[in-house]
Amino acid sequence: MELRSFITVDEAIRKGRTYCPKIVHKKFPLIEGVGRYSMQEVISPSDFPKTDRSAMDGYAISSKDSISSSRSNPSVFSIVGELYPSSKSSISVKKGQAVKVMTGATIPGGTDSVVMFEETQAEGKILKVFSPVRKFQNISRRGEDMKKGLRILKKGQLITPPHVAALSECGKKSVSICSLSIGILSTGDELISRQVINSTQPLLKAYFDRKGFYAKEYGSVEDDEEKIERRLTEINEDVIIVTGGTGPGDRDFLPYIIEENGKFVFRGLRIRPGRTTSFGWFNGKPIFMISGLPVAALIASENVILRMIESWFNLIPERKEYVEGVLQRSVVNTLGFRSFVRVKVIEEHGSRKVVPTRTTGSGVIYSVIDADGILTIDENSEGLEEGQTVRVEMLRW
Amino acid sequence: MELRSFITVDEAIRKGRTYCPKIVHKKFPLIEGVGRYSMQEVISPSDFPKTDRSAMDGYAISSKDSISSSRSNPSVFSIVGELYPSSKSSISVKKGQAVKVMTGATIPGGTDSVVMFEETQAEGKILKVFSPVRKFQNISRRGEDMKKGLRILKKGQLITPPHVAALSECGKKSVSICSLSIGILSTGDELISRQVINSTQPLLKAYFDRKGFYAKEYGSVEDDEEKIERRLTEINEDVIIVTGGTGPGDRDFLPYIIEENGKFVFRGLRIRPGRTTSFGWFNGKPIFMISGLPVAALIASENVILRMIESWFNLIPERKEYVEGVLQRSVVNTLGFRSFVRVKVIEEHGSRKVVPTRTTGSGVIYSVIDADGILTIDENSEGLEEGQTVRVEMLRW
Repeated sequence: MELRSFITVDEAIRKGRTYCPKIVHKKFPLIEGVGRYSMQEVISPSDFPKTDRSAMDGYAISSKDSISSSRSNPSVFSIVGELYPSSKSSISVKKGQAVKVMTGATIPGGTDSVVMFEETQAEGKILKVFSPVRKFQNISRRGEDMKKGLRILKKGQLITPPHVAALSECGKKSVSICSLSIGILSTGDELISRQVINSTQPLLKAYFDRKGFYAKEYGSVEDDEEKIERRLTEINEDVIIVTGGTGPGDRDFLPYIIEENGKFVFRGLRIRPGRTTSFGWFNGKPIFMISGLPVAALIASENVILRMIESWFNLIPERKEYVEGVLQRSVVNTLGFRSFVRVKVIEEHGSRKVVPTRTTGSGVIYSVIDADGILTIDENSEGLEEGQTVRVEMLRW
Repeated sequence: MELRSFITVDEAIRKGRTYCPKIVHKKFPLIEGVGRYSMQEVISPSDFPKTDRSAMDGYAISSKDSISSSRSNPSVFSIVGELYPSSKSSISVKKGQAVKVMTGATIPGGTDSVVMFEETQAEGKILKVFSPVRKFQNISRRGEDMKKGLRILKKGQLITPPHVAALSECGKKSVSICSLSIGILSTGDELISRQVINSTQPLLKAYFDRKGFYAKEYGSVEDDEEKIERRLTEINEDVIIVTGGTGPGDRDFLPYIIEENGKFVFRGLRIRPGRTTSFGWFNGKPIFMISGLPVAALIASENVILRMIESWFNLIPERKEYVEGVLQRSVVNTLGFRSFVRVKVIEEHGSRKVVPTRTTGSGVIYSVIDADGILTIDENSEGLEEGQTVRVEMLRW
């Protein structure tokens, strides 16, 4: 891997976005779609609610009839019926009449407001109302929740619990999601001899599952060209991630395997950590080659693999959360590289301190647990100075 | 339900926190613990890394031997061996000697730094080094990731993907989590007659699953005392949520059932929406009774049920994200009540506008999909004025 052939993340996404895996987007039960990305748009088929409905338990009346009501001088109505959300027939009332309505019941004709039980007193068929109500008070208007034709769910949008409610409301029981599956294989004699514990593979599995995809662990394989090739061929998922074997060291057979069975799209990125991150095409499938060290692997997953997946399927990225604070220690950057620095964010007497936890060490996973956010230093910067106000992306898993 | 017996959310949590369900915290495979709450502490059993290791592919040398190196005047070393992360034996070197090391290999005795391949040239056993290295450069120091005795995971902490890596590193394959199960039953003739679609039950299932618990849908039951009681008795989970049947209306049998089989801890809360939220004890289990309307149910779930669960098990709440902005429309509050107002947050020319999407309507679920955040108005406030700077809690699912 030649340093001069390294490209920026943005170039990498541009180059890689046409190498999209072919996947069939299947329908899944609505509940299983939560936390995953929708591959369809959902449009409201009608107004919701379908009629004007009571938003309270109380009495439906004409607001005009209640204008001068007070505790000492209540308006008086005659109760002519009652309606439940389950009532199928409708009622129409005249001036001075009231209908008892439960929350969700369709409002009877001739009424335009609901007075809460607490503001009334009923004796037999006689109702006293103690305070005036405004027109449409305590009424959910037809179409107030969702108008016919409203786009409830966008293509590429992350499905949330409220979407489940809105889609259920429309009678939808299933949804088409991005069911991308990711197979993860780790290479390295040190993993087979158990000199080094493979903590990176479960990390990546957890990360991509949590992001809404289907990650599967394919275990470890020693540094042996034939074995690696066979194990890669056995991966029965849409995308392959292989960790380790990407460095300039002697025992790295991956480049030969890729070039025999496909090609490289890029080799090496101008990011720190994660500079060995590569991407190619293997037997008709996209393959990411990333460091076996957990932090470098995580940084590559967040900033390269996830972004590439978003770009393939036009997924709408989750909103990021940023805070500003004062940098407590200078951080240097290699010009032309983008650095991702883990930081702690400390709120103190109304001001915010940003403390880099580490600037090196792509294996030090605890620095991620301990960090509150990530400070990104762009390619054209030589670093950030102590005392400078910086913008930090807060971590959320 | 008497308005004067309504209590505040804070009082509700204080009253309810002793009514904790008895659950057995089982061990789960590490990966299944992600996104759930740990019920155990995990302490690092040793230093990680266990030895000083190379953080790069390169040559281990003594930094002192490289002081005056440059392209034109390289330092010269003799290569006396090579080490991989899987190498079991160790080497010790003398002045002027170098050992080829792969990332992760234990550093040989007599060396204190690693020079990257890119800064060297090797011919046979002769190595030229083109730039000086600092002491410990490109070395991951023993214990630099985690020191023996470090608390990696707290009791009550949400388990994240980095925790999976750190716990794997320590040889942990399972973790004890809060495996609280929640059974949800909906009441209402309108659900059985299908006049109203039960969108609240899948909403709550999705919400509590996503928050790290095990929610199960128990379907709907008509407004019939005997049937409701039987269906409640059949719920085989740690906590019960029942929706509907909590209002002051005639057909609400829930109060009788609770008083026959247990007791109320509180009835009605000073919150809007969600004022009918109640809590009690039913056949030895905690039971929440909340509105059947989706938004009121969601507000009660976030602000009462989730907070109660956190308080029962001393869970560390997820960090909340707040932003400040200028309120675009006045919002009134009933003194003594806490209002939860859904708002859109619009960034414009560097300033931030906060626009209430709705102030009423506990059924309007689209207002939640469409909202960016929640504006909380406290009990002692009569409302917020247009033009006021307000703090908004951003929604994240």
